[in-house]
Amino acid sequence: MSLLIQNGTIITPDQRYVADILIKGESIYRIAPVIDTADVGDVEILDATDKYVFPGFIDPHVHIYLPFMGTYAKDTYDSGSRAALVGGTTTLIEMCCPAREDDPWDAYQLWKRKAEGLSACDYSFHMGVTRFDETTEPLLRRIVADGVTSFKVFLAYKGAFGVSDEELYRTCRLAKELGVVVTAHCENADLVAQLQASLVAAGKTGPEFHEPSRPVAVEAEGVHHFCTFLKLTGAAGYVVHTSCRDAVEAALKFQTQGVDVKLETVIPYLVLDKTYAERPNFEGAKYVMSPPIRDLVHQTYLWNALRSGVISTVATDHAPFDFVGQKEMGKPPESDFTKIPNGIPSVEHRPTLLYTHGVATGRIDLHRFVEVLSTAAAKQFGMFPRKGSIQPGCDADLVIWDPDYRGTISAATHTMDTDYDGFEGFEIVGRPAVVTCRGKVSVRDGQFTGTLGHGRQVARSTKGGDVD
Amino acid sequence: MSLLIQNGTIITPDQRYVADILIKGESIYRIAPVIDTADVGDVEILDATDKYVFPGFIDPHVHIYLPFMGTYAKDTYDSGSRAALVGGTTTLIEMCCPAREDDPWDAYQLWKRKAEGLSACDYSFHMGVTRFDETTEPLLRRIVADGVTSFKVFLAYKGAFGVSDEELYRTCRLAKELGVVVTAHCENADLVAQLQASLVAAGKTGPEFHEPSRPVAVEAEGVHHFCTFLKLTGAAGYVVHTSCRDAVEAALKFQTQGVDVKLETVIPYLVLDKTYAERPNFEGAKYVMSPPIRDLVHQTYLWNALRSGVISTVATDHAPFDFVGQKEMGKPPESDFTKIPNGIPSVEHRPTLLYTHGVATGRIDLHRFVEVLSTAAAKQFGMFPRKGSIQPGCDADLVIWDPDYRGTISAATHTMDTDYDGFEGFEIVGRPAVVTCRGKVSVRDGQFTGTLGHGRQVARSTKGGDVD
Amino acid sequence: MSLLIQNGTIITPDQRYVADILIKGESIYRIAPVIDTADVGDVEILDATDKYVFPGFIDPHVHIYLPFMGTYAKDTYDSGSRAALVGGTTTLIEMCCPAREDDPWDAYQLWKRKAEGLSACDYSFHMGVTRFDETTEPLLRRIVADGVTSFKVFLAYKGAFGVSDEELYRTCRLAKELGVVVTAHCENADLVAQLQASLVAAGKTGPEFHEPSRPVAVEAEGVHHFCTFLKLTGAAGYVVHTSCRDAVEAALKFQTQGVDVKLETVIPYLVLDKTYAERPNFEGAKYVMSPPIRDLVHQTYLWNALRSGVISTVATDHAPFDFVGQKEMGKPPESDFTKIPNGIPSVEHRPTLLYTHGVATGRIDLHRFVEVLSTAAAKQFGMFPRKGSIQPGCDADLVIWDPDYRGTISAATHTMDTDYDGFEGFEIVGRPAVVTCRGKVSVRDGQFTGTLGHGRQVARSTKGGDVD
Amino acid sequence: MSLLIQNGTIITPDQRYVADILIKGESIYRIAPVIDTADVGDVEILDATDKYVFPGFIDPHVHIYLPFMGTYAKDTYDSGSRAALVGGTTTLIEMCCPAREDDPWDAYQLWKRKAEGLSACDYSFHMGVTRFDETTEPLLRRIVADGVTSFKVFLAYKGAFGVSDEELYRTCRLAKELGVVVTAHCENADLVAQLQASLVAAGKTGPEFHEPSRPVAVEAEGVHHFCTFLKLTGAAGYVVHTSCRDAVEAALKFQTQGVDVKLETVIPYLVLDKTYAERPNFEGAKYVMSPPIRDLVHQTYLWNALRSGVISTVATDHAPFDFVGQKEMGKPPESDFTKIPNGIPSVEHRPTLLYTHGVATGRIDLHRFVEVLSTAAAKQFGMFPRKGSIQPGCDADLVIWDPDYRGTISAATHTMDTDYDGFEGFEIVGRPAVVTCRGKVSVRDGQFTGTLGHGRQVARSTKGGDVD
Repeated sequence: MSLLIQNGTIITPDQRYVADILIKGESIYRIAPVIDTADVGDVEILDATDKYVFPGFIDPHVHIYLPFMGTYAKDTYDSGSRAALVGGTTTLIEMCCPAREDDPWDAYQLWKRKAEGLSACDYSFHMGVTRFDETTEPLLRRIVADGVTSFKVFLAYKGAFGVSDEELYRTCRLAKELGVVVTAHCENADLVAQLQASLVAAGKTGPEFHEPSRPVAVEAEGVHHFCTFLKLTGAAGYVVHTSCRDAVEAALKFQTQGVDVKLETVIPYLVLDKTYAERPNFEGAKYVMSPPIRDLVHQTYLWNALRSGVISTVATDHAPFDFVGQKEMGKPPESDFTKIPNGIPSVEHRPTLLYTHGVATGRIDLHRFVEVLSTAAAKQFGMFPRKGSIQPGCDADLVIWDPDYRGTISAATHTMDTDYDGFEGFEIVGRPAVVTCRGKVSVRDGQFTGTLGHGRQVARSTKGGDVD
Repeated sequence: MSLLIQNGTIITPDQRYVADILIKGESIYRIAPVIDTADVGDVEILDATDKYVFPGFIDPHVHIYLPFMGTYAKDTYDSGSRAALVGGTTTLIEMCCPAREDDPWDAYQLWKRKAEGLSACDYSFHMGVTRFDETTEPLLRRIVADGVTSFKVFLAYKGAFGVSDEELYRTCRLAKELGVVVTAHCENADLVAQLQASLVAAGKTGPEFHEPSRPVAVEAEGVHHFCTFLKLTGAAGYVVHTSCRDAVEAALKFQTQGVDVKLETVIPYLVLDKTYAERPNFEGAKYVMSPPIRDLVHQTYLWNALRSGVISTVATDHAPFDFVGQKEMGKPPESDFTKIPNGIPSVEHRPTLLYTHGVATGRIDLHRFVEVLSTAAAKQFGMFPRKGSIQPGCDADLVIWDPDYRGTISAATHTMDTDYDGFEGFEIVGRPAVVTCRGKVSVRDGQFTGTLGHGRQVARSTKGGDVD
Repeated sequence: MSLLIQNGTIITPDQRYVADILIKGESIYRIAPVIDTADVGDVEILDATDKYVFPGFIDPHVHIYLPFMGTYAKDTYDSGSRAALVGGTTTLIEMCCPAREDDPWDAYQLWKRKAEGLSACDYSFHMGVTRFDETTEPLLRRIVADGVTSFKVFLAYKGAFGVSDEELYRTCRLAKELGVVVTAHCENADLVAQLQASLVAAGKTGPEFHEPSRPVAVEAEGVHHFCTFLKLTGAAGYVVHTSCRDAVEAALKFQTQGVDVKLETVIPYLVLDKTYAERPNFEGAKYVMSPPIRDLVHQTYLWNALRSGVISTVATDHAPFDFVGQKEMGKPPESDFTKIPNGIPSVEHRPTLLYTHGVATGRIDLHRFVEVLSTAAAKQFGMFPRKGSIQPGCDADLVIWDPDYRGTISAATHTMDTDYDGFEGFEIVGRPAVVTCRGKVSVRDGQFTGTLGHGRQVARSTKGGDVD
Repeated sequence: MSLLIQNGTIITPDQRYVADILIKGESIYRIAPVIDTADVGDVEILDATDKYVFPGFIDPHVHIYLPFMGTYAKDTYDSGSRAALVGGTTTLIEMCCPAREDDPWDAYQLWKRKAEGLSACDYSFHMGVTRFDETTEPLLRRIVADGVTSFKVFLAYKGAFGVSDEELYRTCRLAKELGVVVTAHCENADLVAQLQASLVAAGKTGPEFHEPSRPVAVEAEGVHHFCTFLKLTGAAGYVVHTSCRDAVEAALKFQTQGVDVKLETVIPYLVLDKTYAERPNFEGAKYVMSPPIRDLVHQTYLWNALRSGVISTVATDHAPFDFVGQKEMGKPPESDFTKIPNGIPSVEHRPTLLYTHGVATGRIDLHRFVEVLSTAAAKQFGMFPRKGSIQPGCDADLVIWDPDYRGTISAATHTMDTDYDGFEGFEIVGRPAVVTCRGKVSVRDGQFTGTLGHGRQVARSTKGGDVD
């Protein structure tokens, strides 16, 4: 059976028109002002009058299977992919984070197994490079050949995921050779460790001290460090979860020198600020993530950078932990903010929060909205134009967006598998009415209607070419 | 009769796919993987196999009717629009430059009359604000209401076109009120006048002293000045013909503060450098334009800024003067570079030069190529999505681009009405095979096949909305 | 009779030692660890045990005779020079500000007559260039030859003191030729006028709207503009009363390019912030000066810039007006902040406020304290080493500073001739115990003991040489 | 016997006057316009008419005893201290560089023994922190208590001297606690190692590839990294041998944020450029030092930064190796620039080169000359006002400078113990006529006349106080 989306306003970064879209199988088959149902055969009709039709959103920075701080992130691909779809996200790129001592290929297989047959949406991985030596290099090449065309390095989390400068250099050099993007978590591990120790030693153990343990200078230093490696190797880079002015400025300096480095921010930095992490009764723990949510002055700067193009993408860094039992690991009496698992779950809410705080307020227009949520990530990570576009032949990943919807976020109603919601009570404007993932209607009226296991791993291309 | 473009690779900033495009009348009617000619009726078929199909290019900065330095720019809409089309440019935005004492409405009518019934391509105007007082304001409102939704101000050319700071402020404030973009020529007039006088007094009168009479500091000062006015009024701005690092950096500072200022560079700055203006035997005069072509270090910087998005558009500042009789006005024995009419004709060559030096060298990709030549200007100047896009319903302004073409630029073969070509002997890669302007096939195999008078003025929208 | 200062701790920017200083006539005659009174003849002995001995302070930016906004600044050289001396300032540089239509030489003579025979301390002038044409240039040369080796230009106050860009260029060029420093008030006049008009039209007429009428962008623009002129002429420049980060950063960019531009800040910016101008009941009017006192974030930045050397001098911009009758000119019911005379009197308090808020808090050390209050100005303005130093042969302008003094500022006790004090109730640490001006003991225990008319105009040298 | 310097022009950063100076023992006893020899007893008279008298110069960055790359730097304190004095340098601060595995206290004793009883000039040490753990911390405290109040860290030379980030943090924290300055060699070790390996693997083994193996980005990264640690610990820092614009700009950003970081450049960067290292026949090896000598554009920038105060001091990084047998270690046939010992000997020539290229050309004035060669280092490193000043009671370290001397540098005549001179054939303006070190006449007419063993270690104070 086919799908016919009628009379929607198609919005991409460079298009806006009203048309019908005919989907056959997994792809867009035809786009035309009017498509006669008589020509089509067996078809389900979806009315998109007065609604926008966006390419399916891509979240290039999520964690699903995440062993972290002795526990595991809460969502599996079951809950995680459903939550993504409900929000309009049809493709996830998950961080595959092997421990330093793990075999990368085995880790990659482990991560794949968590998704295969279970995910309701499409997915891919950034391959975490947490060690780089003679034994790992051929395995990394094999993983890239399998369509995983981005690496992830951590300047933070030394001892767990972090790499040495020599490893970082060699990773970048290999990435340059293979046309692979190096994504990086840019915080200096040693500085964080020292500052944490100082704060804890001084009895400053509450969640509100998480931010001071990772000040903006630590992040700016990480970005400056990483960009220097990009400059000297010629590799293409991508800074994940940029939280502050200082970090953006550090990257901007290199951009103007011709270094190919793109910046991601994540939705919590655009709508929250550090006062959330200062909430009493340990509630601040819900807002502990790294880099931390910052002072409001940085939020303003990020919106400007998002509009002007200095920041390319808005992701989530979705890393879901329950408040009870998980976030509480850092609770009094053995109070210690360094033991609070990091993350603010948001894979479900990213699009509506960006629409509410960006489009509805006039900070960005609809075209930029689609670009930062979908097209830019598709291009940066080798999925364009199969993803991130609305054109004949591309994957039928579509979001029929209802701009008139009004609602309120709550853990009571969200799809994510966490016992709290960091955006509890936030009023929202707009949400997906219908979401299709490769032609499969996976969401209707905010409810998941898809199929677990429908999702497939996306084979991504390397730099230097669109996927034809 | 309809047009059917078969099997081309459609390229826009966010699309890449192979499809057929059916044009009915002036618009794109249907895009589909295969369009059966049997369904179409009377149709001309254009084969685009192995060719790209781009949206028609837009040149947002040209001069056609230009009284300047006591002479007139050479091209009329006859030669100018033909040259534009041959290069793939289907829409021009011309600067309407009344003298300070002129009535703006009369000037606007004069400029319109030069184009109406003569131009083979579409066009619009930036309305030059060369005076701002109680009498001019209502006329400017009337001109905006006529679909001319951008102003042009000159910080240079004091006494001729230049405005005072009070006039600049009031112009920006009106622009903000009306949702109009303020475009600006940013060079400090008094500094230029003083430096010119010093150089001439010192006997430094050759064309090679044009650049030192307008050093980068003069341009950076102009940009800083203009951006301050944008910041304090909230108006949207657009800096024309940015030539150097210092000017870009000045604007970048304001962009990161949230000021809505976009940057244009022009093709001569991307492929020439100041040594051209130093050529002996007065040949340097061919390369006199303002701001001047700069040292190579600035060219490199501009390419980086173009790729990374800091610069939005590539235009021409097409201002054509003959070498004999016009450029020669500054020739020995009464040698005086200040008497050389400013301009390097390039309305015809912009796309192929950008393709040759940008795409073929890997500095920018095809999507960015289209964006800076077409889509960005369409959006910035209120013509999107009628222009700058390839979608059902939009104007059928299309370029079928032959990437395999190889040729050489020469005044002997160019269409522009000047007796020299600044890019004489330059080898080029790629050119339009076919160009359509609202459905009219206006170029075939590099030859103009259109109709003078086919062109129409584009009614442009103000900021805040796409043209639906 | 001679003076013998015994056992003081001599502090200059590059000295610190305990010694006796013997003054004969107007000069320092001998400095030695111990000077035997037996050798000296008739001598007054001043005990400086446990006290610092500084070179007399120089205030390079004061207004004494100032016709402004239809009234006159309050202090004459009678009250003004006494107030300066009580604070430790032994040399003033006054702004000579002719109106645009005035003859500069006549104006200069007028200003001189206000001081001659009346001032108790030494003085010089910055010659205001408020017009520049063929008639003024030879007069300016004559004034420079009279030992007035600095010009003052206003980018603000258009119509009154402001110069055109052409005049600014020619002023800088003459300054370069003569080795004269161009000092500049850097605020864009037209922007201020437009913003004032907008605010007043919107009914925003209280003193708290003075700052928004001259935002930091206006000052940064002025500095950028001025520095561009310095760069292109090669003249040495000096930005007076720098109030904010944006202005300092603008200048810093040019400093790193090799432009010889020095920055002055004034004491109100270092200890006040804009909340003072927001005080109710029109009390904010006491704190109206231009540029305005700013947000606290700028104060912090200025202290850093002062310590690191980016800012060279701390002056006052002393411009004294009474609250009753003068500041009240902008009072309700005809409320209008643009009618409030600009100025916060501080010629008396600058040293003790800088000591209290700078030295006592550890922000700057004693050597930097002396440098920014005395030596740097002496060097910059051609009075070094006769002023600004403690060495045999130099003028015996000395401050014996009591670091143990504690007091409170009040209009009830100050020497300045104004009916209010902007620092009323401020607690201070340290003050001069004794002040000598060319050997004349002019202050003892905080009381003026000098002689009106003792002061003389200092003949200042041009750039390029110490005064030997 | 006393010394009487008659009629010299005393120049310090804030003084200029003609006077006689009487030295008794090791100190300045009296300064007066005229000192009667009748009063003085047994005295040697030195005529300084038409000569300058400067405080003895301080070189805060030299290597004397330096095991490096398997060989030893050539000068001992015999030749090194004589060469220093001949040039006018009366105090050296040597880098004490223990290997990572060495006991710091033992190393310190070893370094002291190399100087004690042998040096003809005064000296102190920067204590190299090449490891930081529980055992080293108390030893470092003991060394500081011995008057060595600065640490040296290497971000370069990993495995040899380099520290980890954790060690760097702890070193800075201890420095902050003790009021000690952290000096740092700022090049990222891993980047250098990787770039070296790449170049050598590509057969790029000549001395001209030394610079590309340590490009400016590597140094800027090091400075940014180091300054971040200073910011987060509050320690005072000092970047040694800054060679380029990018590094200065990185530091400047932190200076404006209030970080107490000072910059040193060294004389080779101010008079040489990278073309020297490209000289044929392996002669380029003479010019191999780290960071490398750079492109001319950086030299210009450094002079600007020196004049404006962004750079505080000019040192040498004197590290003397013979060309024959030492520099030749990297010679063909086993050509390898990484085996060339680093260093350009200049302890002898620094003052005359700075005078010739700085003062005589007008780039800096005499006061700044003294400041960057002497006073600034004395203050920064806790020797002021005993050193770096000319005042009663201070050490009688004086340079009587003959500004009329003209000469030529040559290995044939220099005092340093190397078989070549990097400035061979350079013409110079000015040199010391006489040099005294604590009252000992150690140089006359360019010849060493001092006494080996006269030199003593200077006990330096910690931050926060002059040495009284």
